[in-house]
Amino acid sequence: MAEQIPTDSVGLITPQTLHFDQPLELECGVVLPTYDLVYESYGKLNREADNAILICHALSGNHHAAGYHSMEDRKPGWWDVAIGPGKPIDTNRFFVVCLNNLGGCDGSTGPTSPNPENGKPYGPDFPFVTVSDWVNSQARLADRLMIHQWAAVVGASLGGMQTLQWSISFPDRIRHAIVIAAASKLTAQNIAFNEVARQAIRTDPDFHQGRYLEHHVLPERGLRLARMLGHITYLSDESMGAKFGRELREGEIHYDYGVEFQVESYLRYQADAFVGKFDANTYLLMTKALDYFDPAAAHDNDLTAALQQVTAQFCVLSFTSDWRFSPKRSKELVRGLLNNNIRVSYAEIEAHQGHDAFLMKIPHYLNIFSGYMGRIQTSGENR
Amino acid sequence: MAEQIPTDSVGLITPQTLHFDQPLELECGVVLPTYDLVYESYGKLNREADNAILICHALSGNHHAAGYHSMEDRKPGWWDVAIGPGKPIDTNRFFVVCLNNLGGCDGSTGPTSPNPENGKPYGPDFPFVTVSDWVNSQARLADRLMIHQWAAVVGASLGGMQTLQWSISFPDRIRHAIVIAAASKLTAQNIAFNEVARQAIRTDPDFHQGRYLEHHVLPERGLRLARMLGHITYLSDESMGAKFGRELREGEIHYDYGVEFQVESYLRYQADAFVGKFDANTYLLMTKALDYFDPAAAHDNDLTAALQQVTAQFCVLSFTSDWRFSPKRSKELVRGLLNNNIRVSYAEIEAHQGHDAFLMKIPHYLNIFSGYMGRIQTSGENR
Repeated sequence: MAEQIPTDSVGLITPQTLHFDQPLELECGVVLPTYDLVYESYGKLNREADNAILICHALSGNHHAAGYHSMEDRKPGWWDVAIGPGKPIDTNRFFVVCLNNLGGCDGSTGPTSPNPENGKPYGPDFPFVTVSDWVNSQARLADRLMIHQWAAVVGASLGGMQTLQWSISFPDRIRHAIVIAAASKLTAQNIAFNEVARQAIRTDPDFHQGRYLEHHVLPERGLRLARMLGHITYLSDESMGAKFGRELREGEIHYDYGVEFQVESYLRYQADAFVGKFDANTYLLMTKALDYFDPAAAHDNDLTAALQQVTAQFCVLSFTSDWRFSPKRSKELVRGLLNNNIRVSYAEIEAHQGHDAFLMKIPHYLNIFSGYMGRIQTSGENR
Repeated sequence: MAEQIPTDSVGLITPQTLHFDQPLELECGVVLPTYDLVYESYGKLNREADNAILICHALSGNHHAAGYHSMEDRKPGWWDVAIGPGKPIDTNRFFVVCLNNLGGCDGSTGPTSPNPENGKPYGPDFPFVTVSDWVNSQARLADRLMIHQWAAVVGASLGGMQTLQWSISFPDRIRHAIVIAAASKLTAQNIAFNEVARQAIRTDPDFHQGRYLEHHVLPERGLRLARMLGHITYLSDESMGAKFGRELREGEIHYDYGVEFQVESYLRYQADAFVGKFDANTYLLMTKALDYFDPAAAHDNDLTAALQQVTAQFCVLSFTSDWRFSPKRSKELVRGLLNNNIRVSYAEIEAHQGHDAFLMKIPHYLNIFSGYMGRIQTSGENR
């Protein structure tokens, strides 16, 4: 419990929901007639509306990026280390918006929402959404919030892909793009991990072709496996070693299939915590959005060509021990940007925490991040 | 089909089975009253019986390491690139033995064998077997074959662990130890992958607490997932990229959960090929043997101390792109050996194929391997 909310927190936050009536045509060809987007905001939009920052979330993230929903919350939002007064995304300066993406399971319209056609949950009938679709829906959210241009769009991992797509889809609506621990497309290995997670969910007998809610069950086994596998890829071999090593939970080998090593206990705990909190159909959709993202594909696999319209300035950050989206992948993006004479700051941050480093309080990382954000100009300031 | 058996093949091979009546006490405390071991041999044992080589297999391997079982076989044994006349393990010089390990599912006593207590398959009642147990059972096989001392024990991956254990358990029965793409213990990440594979199998509703054979079903879903996951760790990101890239199987995105990318097709194919061919309880046992292996544990985690009795000469090989057992892990072993003034040849082989490189026809690798094997002295030769 947050007995006292820390002074560098954005404080108590109430999510907002906006309803959209204008149909949204998705890349897969389906038209979504109406939808809701739930979002949070921190800080104040200035008169010129040029201090707005959009935060894009990753696979299992949501709109609750910072602060607390109630005094009983034990933990703040998922990126509280980066958002707040005096933090890299400084809410004394910026108006910060974070939404739950379309297809999500935390309040925005997604597979658990009622399908207007029959009143039952969409389930597997919710259409495939892509990174471009998300960006389009986020642009409509910006319209409704009277934000013509984001001072910056910021995202890590799948969120970084959305940030990149913003710079391609709406060059005049984004001044800065901050892309952390991301890539311009998945590798075959990334896709392979996603495929195993999907197979785990889809072959769970409780999946019922995605209509599990109608059967009053959840594909828990599959979702647990997907989450465990995900966690392996979020941590580095090194950080797992530092965290758990080969430590036995009870000091000795039992020769059974219970938990023997601490790392097994961690994985099972993470899996249990995820099930019931996250929707399996959403998980499937998110992994597919990851797989499909590849802006260079429409340009003969030439990333430089795909970035030709980009005008935003970029900050690209990667972490040395991230093997899900390694620094090499960030450098590919940097190269594509530089080939177009786009201003890019790039830092490869020494960190042993793996992909998850982007969520962590790593001073060197947060300092670099702060430094870049501090140079973003907004009205009413002399910098 | 091998229309004509290649001249550098060991040719047509018939596996042999030996029955053991002397009870085997296992590390877990259980005593196995009797058991069978199936093995193959290639080449001829010389009069002095000092040209014998033991091949130890990895997780899903078996006794069929080289040659063909019939003219209809489409593929030779799993290590045919390394075993045969003129190959690194030259059957013109050596008498080569490879067995299916205890607990296996290819002929040696294991979970699918009848439990003498009730005539039903052992299933989950087959005891846990460790690397030490295997080495003990292999020593008995050596006794029966009249081999007092192996010229060399050779193994990759889990097979390399057995090789290492041979040098510790029976220093006077092994002259050379060839340890390829292995480690002296698993990391937390290695254990984590094994745990996800085990959870996939054990939570499959068709697993029936391991008594699936009695229920006339197989935990196919779980075994498929375990195998897919395994394959990701056997290949490198680079080799997966080279093999599949982001190629779409049918040239365009379908927005469904069928196979979209080639790598998905590969994983599903590998999974399907494995199911029905490999026993799930054996898979569980093998992953546990991997997890438990840690000769330094009994010596306060001091690998140097664990290797104090070793007298064999070592050849340690690793592959640059192997992230399952990276070169770093081989170097830990090399250091422990050197600290004991043991003669070690170490080579880190440039290869992009990942862990699976040990199975492949990589000239540089096979040349180094041949070079070392060629220096192993046996009677009746002038070298």
